[in-house]
Amino acid sequence: MTRSPAATAAAPVLDLTLSGGELTAQLVDVPSVSGDERVLADAVEAALRALPHLTVDRDGDAVVARTNLGRAERIVLAGHLDTVPIADNLPSRVDGDLLYGCGTSDMKAGVAVQLRIAATVADPNRDLTFVFYDCEEVEAPRNGLGRLARNHPDWLAADFAVLMEPSNAQVEGGCQGTMRATVSTGGHRAHSARSWLGDNAIHKAAPILQRLADYTPRLVEIDGLEYHEGLNAVRIEGGVAGNVIPDACAVTVNFRFAPDRDQAEAEAHVREVFAGYDVAVTDSAPGALPGLAHPAAAAFIAATATTPQAKFGWTDVARFSALGVPAVNYGPGDPNLAHTREEHCSLSAVTECEKRIRDWLQG
Amino acid sequence: MTRSPAATAAAPVLDLTLSGGELTAQLVDVPSVSGDERVLADAVEAALRALPHLTVDRDGDAVVARTNLGRAERIVLAGHLDTVPIADNLPSRVDGDLLYGCGTSDMKAGVAVQLRIAATVADPNRDLTFVFYDCEEVEAPRNGLGRLARNHPDWLAADFAVLMEPSNAQVEGGCQGTMRATVSTGGHRAHSARSWLGDNAIHKAAPILQRLADYTPRLVEIDGLEYHEGLNAVRIEGGVAGNVIPDACAVTVNFRFAPDRDQAEAEAHVREVFAGYDVAVTDSAPGALPGLAHPAAAAFIAATATTPQAKFGWTDVARFSALGVPAVNYGPGDPNLAHTREEHCSLSAVTECEKRIRDWLQG
Repeated sequence: MTRSPAATAAAPVLDLTLSGGELTAQLVDVPSVSGDERVLADAVEAALRALPHLTVDRDGDAVVARTNLGRAERIVLAGHLDTVPIADNLPSRVDGDLLYGCGTSDMKAGVAVQLRIAATVADPNRDLTFVFYDCEEVEAPRNGLGRLARNHPDWLAADFAVLMEPSNAQVEGGCQGTMRATVSTGGHRAHSARSWLGDNAIHKAAPILQRLADYTPRLVEIDGLEYHEGLNAVRIEGGVAGNVIPDACAVTVNFRFAPDRDQAEAEAHVREVFAGYDVAVTDSAPGALPGLAHPAAAAFIAATATTPQAKFGWTDVARFSALGVPAVNYGPGDPNLAHTREEHCSLSAVTECEKRIRDWLQG
Repeated sequence: MTRSPAATAAAPVLDLTLSGGELTAQLVDVPSVSGDERVLADAVEAALRALPHLTVDRDGDAVVARTNLGRAERIVLAGHLDTVPIADNLPSRVDGDLLYGCGTSDMKAGVAVQLRIAATVADPNRDLTFVFYDCEEVEAPRNGLGRLARNHPDWLAADFAVLMEPSNAQVEGGCQGTMRATVSTGGHRAHSARSWLGDNAIHKAAPILQRLADYTPRLVEIDGLEYHEGLNAVRIEGGVAGNVIPDACAVTVNFRFAPDRDQAEAEAHVREVFAGYDVAVTDSAPGALPGLAHPAAAAFIAATATTPQAKFGWTDVARFSALGVPAVNYGPGDPNLAHTREEHCSLSAVTECEKRIRDWLQG
């Protein structure tokens, strides 16, 4: 068996005295594709253990560091160490204010901000928990934050969490839930030359599609953010053969629901919309309330000087929400560049983001 | 290369002095799965060439024999030599009045009637053409009757044709046409978390299904037979992924149309029903008029002493109709037993069918 170079390489020494942008470049130059984060996790752990004001824990390739100052509130700053596969875009390179390379935007710029705050804010006004985790870019069961939530929920306990995913330094509050369900019709097969002997299941799906076409999604305001629900067919299947009246038709719908509904309420709504039809829920994930009414969140919004937006897509903030921790996305990268060959981030944005966070935690 | 036993076996000698039932058993015991009819075709050809009142032609494994008596009318008696694959149901066996085995009902009982008429009616009141062909049970381009129609349409020229497919000795007149078309909708993809940025093609298919559900098919009387049309969805497909608003949906419909419409009229009707949608015809086959008003047909109906029924499913009678020859299905077998492991035919039905045909041609 040959091991990949990354699996056997010694961890580089991270220099937390560098600027946020320089530190981002150092992080980017340690490859950490999902499942191969060990070297980078070792480097992060070593850098954090060198900071005397933090205690450090590790679970697999997730590293958690915290202050223990007895403050009234505790804040989580979280980020994932992994990247999507390298697309011939390493090592990093600088062009003016831009740093190019795999993981620059998603999300080693955010990780650099975490590390810089860890290194430079030894006496924060709120206790801090720094969470660095693995396998965010792959299937949900492997997600390192999910593993921490199962193995060590106490490590994640806090009053408010900031997930430093790329958001162009805009605060994106909470996230919508998602549910998929199959809405089905049945019938009886017959030869299509004698169709009156059968019962066509595809024809009976007409009202299902009409209800979807007529559906008016809710716009919901929560903590000043406007969420936009959606109920859509994402697949339809029916048919046996070109000369057979079909006896089954299935419409797969995806319901994206605002975080004022939980999964049970979302399912009840879907069943109500499709009353009279067989409805089977196939998968779902809860949304996350933005929690912007919490004093720590309000102070954070003020420090970032941004207007928070609702997050429509599902993100890992929902894992914090499931633990009772309100959470938002806020990070220096550009989400539209994530996973692209041309991925890059603005060096000055890293510095600015770091400054906003520091002001909040030292104000 | 090894050849199958059937491909190298010598042709058995058919004894046309046997009863229709005994001759059926002899035919059944010469395996002739589609594509492997040569031995049986050789035997049929040899038996026919022994009859001095017939001239005999051959094209591949199709054999055509005819009288040339200068009669005012010419009649075709047609049947296929091939069977579906053997299902551990050869050789044949007799149980009382029933003969069991692959091809008994579909349609060596009918072929036995053809051969018995060929052997015993040397001076018919109408000129006769006996058509025995290959590959009826497989895909249309291989059909031996279709090949004869392309290569030797003059061999099939006649005033009326009887296709001796199993019909429980009921006359089934003409057949309906069939057309398949795809009715499509389009849209724009978007992430389902931001569904309002997309345009859902599946939702837009609702009116297509509703028009199908609301469709009232025509009942059409032709030559005293009632045809029953049908327009049905036989397949529906749409969807990209579980989190994507779909940009395409396609409904495949099958239109079974009475033989008073030709294919162009059938297509115009389908396009009218789905006005406003993209309609693409993918395949079609014309129907066949029953032609029962022709004097030869009227005499045939009288001789069989049956009440003709409309044929809804598409059959090879349409190939005669396309050549301008009215055609009906009439044979001793039971169509419901065709292609089953328990396939069998009634020996007395073979005798009765042979007698009806002989009475018609000697009356």
